Amino acid sequence: MWLAKVIVSYKTGILDPEAKTIHNALISLGYQDINKVETGKYFQIGFSDSIDRDKAKELTKQACAKILSNPVIQKYTFQLEEVSK
Amino acid sequence: MWLAKVIVSYKTGILDPEAKTIHNALISLGYQDINKVETGKYFQIGFSDSIDRDKAKELTKQACAKILSNPVIQKYTFQLEEVSK
Repeated sequence: MWLAKVIVSYKTGILDPEAKTIHNALISLGYQDINKVETGKYFQIGFSDSIDRDKAKELTKQACAKILSNPVIQKYTFQLEEVSK
Repeated sequence: MWLAKVIVSYKTGILDPEAKTIHNALISLGYQDINKVETGKYFQIGFSDSIDRDKAKELTKQACAKILSNPVIQKYTFQLEEVSK
């Protein structure tokens, strides 16, 4: 079956306060060599066996646009992987 | 510079109510061919130019263990990528 691995992250210029907080926490723990942190959401979507690669790609795009991301402030990328159950 | 792309997700058997809600929403929108959803967090960490691959790997592991994940219920995976600024 096909599996989609989706990453939803903020578009350039959108404030990411969680990342800032994590970065500050890492710096205060002594990790001065970390100079950038960004955050996002990860989703893994499994499809029925009847779905081929093209259909999985199309369904993933629709799921990202309708449910998984807010297109005003977020962008998404995904990879498709074929796995045995 | 080296960039770590980290995915933190739930260990097998840990309840993931957000994923269940998203799955239900997709089904109710007519996506019956989606039979599994999992969620997680995504982090991208950028290191100083002075940090080599091995050091970046070590720092990423420490950041995951100390800040980015809860080792009781979550697991993490990461990939390192060299990027030009």
